[in-house]
Amino acid sequence: MKLGIIGLGLIGGSIALDLKRSGFALEVFGFDSQKDHINDALRLGLIDEALSLRSICQRVDLLVLAVPVDVIVKLLPQVMTDIEENCTVTDVGSTKFKIIDCIKDHKNRKNYVAAHPMAGTEFSGPTAAHRGLFYSKALVICNEEDSGKVHLEKVQNMFTHLGMRILKMDAKDHDLHAAYVSHLSHISSFILANTVLDKEKDHNTIFNLASAGFESTVRLAKSSPEMWNPIFEQNQKFILQALAAYIDHLNQFYEHLKNSNTIETKNIMKKSNEIKRVLVQLQTNSLGMNSNAK
Amino acid sequence: MKLGIIGLGLIGGSIALDLKRSGFALEVFGFDSQKDHINDALRLGLIDEALSLRSICQRVDLLVLAVPVDVIVKLLPQVMTDIEENCTVTDVGSTKFKIIDCIKDHKNRKNYVAAHPMAGTEFSGPTAAHRGLFYSKALVICNEEDSGKVHLEKVQNMFTHLGMRILKMDAKDHDLHAAYVSHLSHISSFILANTVLDKEKDHNTIFNLASAGFESTVRLAKSSPEMWNPIFEQNQKFILQALAAYIDHLNQFYEHLKNSNTIETKNIMKKSNEIKRVLVQLQTNSLGMNSNAK
Repeated sequence: MKLGIIGLGLIGGSIALDLKRSGFALEVFGFDSQKDHINDALRLGLIDEALSLRSICQRVDLLVLAVPVDVIVKLLPQVMTDIEENCTVTDVGSTKFKIIDCIKDHKNRKNYVAAHPMAGTEFSGPTAAHRGLFYSKALVICNEEDSGKVHLEKVQNMFTHLGMRILKMDAKDHDLHAAYVSHLSHISSFILANTVLDKEKDHNTIFNLASAGFESTVRLAKSSPEMWNPIFEQNQKFILQALAAYIDHLNQFYEHLKNSNTIETKNIMKKSNEIKRVLVQLQTNSLGMNSNAK
Repeated sequence: MKLGIIGLGLIGGSIALDLKRSGFALEVFGFDSQKDHINDALRLGLIDEALSLRSICQRVDLLVLAVPVDVIVKLLPQVMTDIEENCTVTDVGSTKFKIIDCIKDHKNRKNYVAAHPMAGTEFSGPTAAHRGLFYSKALVICNEEDSGKVHLEKVQNMFTHLGMRILKMDAKDHDLHAAYVSHLSHISSFILANTVLDKEKDHNTIFNLASAGFESTVRLAKSSPEMWNPIFEQNQKFILQALAAYIDHLNQFYEHLKNSNTIETKNIMKKSNEIKRVLVQLQTNSLGMNSNAK
């Protein structure tokens, strides 16, 4: 299988590494708009050869778009026109409705499979790429009925080689759930960092007092604005809904605290504790994947 | 040195483990209101002997109160009355002003040193105790001028044996900074978990889609309501201030997002990214401690 990766960052680079190692990809061709990313990707052995955008569309069996979601909607229509007849195209964007929408009437629509691997770190660029990033994580495929059977199988096969659990979902459902389970936690983290930085003008205080708990909660605030701004833009409607709900819950807690209503504040925390069960399930699942590892 | 620990949970148990190992404590006596905590602490070797509250005050050179902050303000005045002349008392509460206030006129005030180790995990109870919990973390001592020199030295010596960096601060300053750097991140995490659980009534969706990013951001939502409710109560004023600032920042982000003002949302994220520098400093400091490890 000849694999093409457009966008040689954390996600694109990590996909290339694992698929080369597993034998799924015999050759990996790469494109990136940043020259230094191409150089890093070649130096780190993420790709075998760098090609132009046009050439990569014509040389591969499977093409992965691993660029920010605003770049995906710009490139995808042209890419779908430039590919060879049997080439399959997929993407890793954190939004699905707008991406699918931008090629919904394209003559090669069946060659495209909309995907979102729920994995990543707060780091970016080819030097952040590493093995096993996707292992045991969820991969969402959206609107599978609009993809050709052979293309769907090729993409499922690829993500299975990365060790992912495959879920199927309607694009709008995906975008709604992603707003709550992924996008909102990035905003809560970005804004927590902002609030604390704003108050603690003397950053030494944060440096001196911050513990592992604070570090964990603001970890996502290190994420790339170039990647996240377009996600917030494309999933605006559902994110506004999730953010409004979060602010409502915070306002309620604020009022209970102000009124010294300790029964209510305690009840809220007890309800929050239910997240334990969910996270334990996550870990159990991950262990299950490990024990079944090939 | 004979050490007494009142409250045999994560913090009290971890202190006992490390001080016994380092040789700072020759004997460790413990008290807990929960019988099963005492049994666990004895079985796990956290303490050598369980004593009554009254006996422990009379048998030790140094007494650590490691109970929730509402219990500290209840026990501390009586403990300060019951101790022998040379006994030193300290605590590990996450608030300092109200605790200091409850014994400000006590005849043995000089025997007490107000302390707050900025360390912990989301787990609780004696079985959560482990070695190295405090290593390289910050220890804040408040209003040191009100403590006797010999008592201050004993407590500093104890926390230095745990590998902590000692900082001195006024109690009100401590409570203000703790509200922003510690207490607020617990609320943001509790409420994020609450918002998502409320929306995703079918918890399987969270289980299926949640990634490491979400897990990191809601980690603190697993924390004990019994421990945190009294902290929120005692530090109400500063926490309300910090929470109001957080909600303001979230509302501003919401408006920018609603108005598709991508320049502003990006600027906010870029500012949030400055937390990277702070967290790198934290890690560098921690590495520095390790290279100087005894």
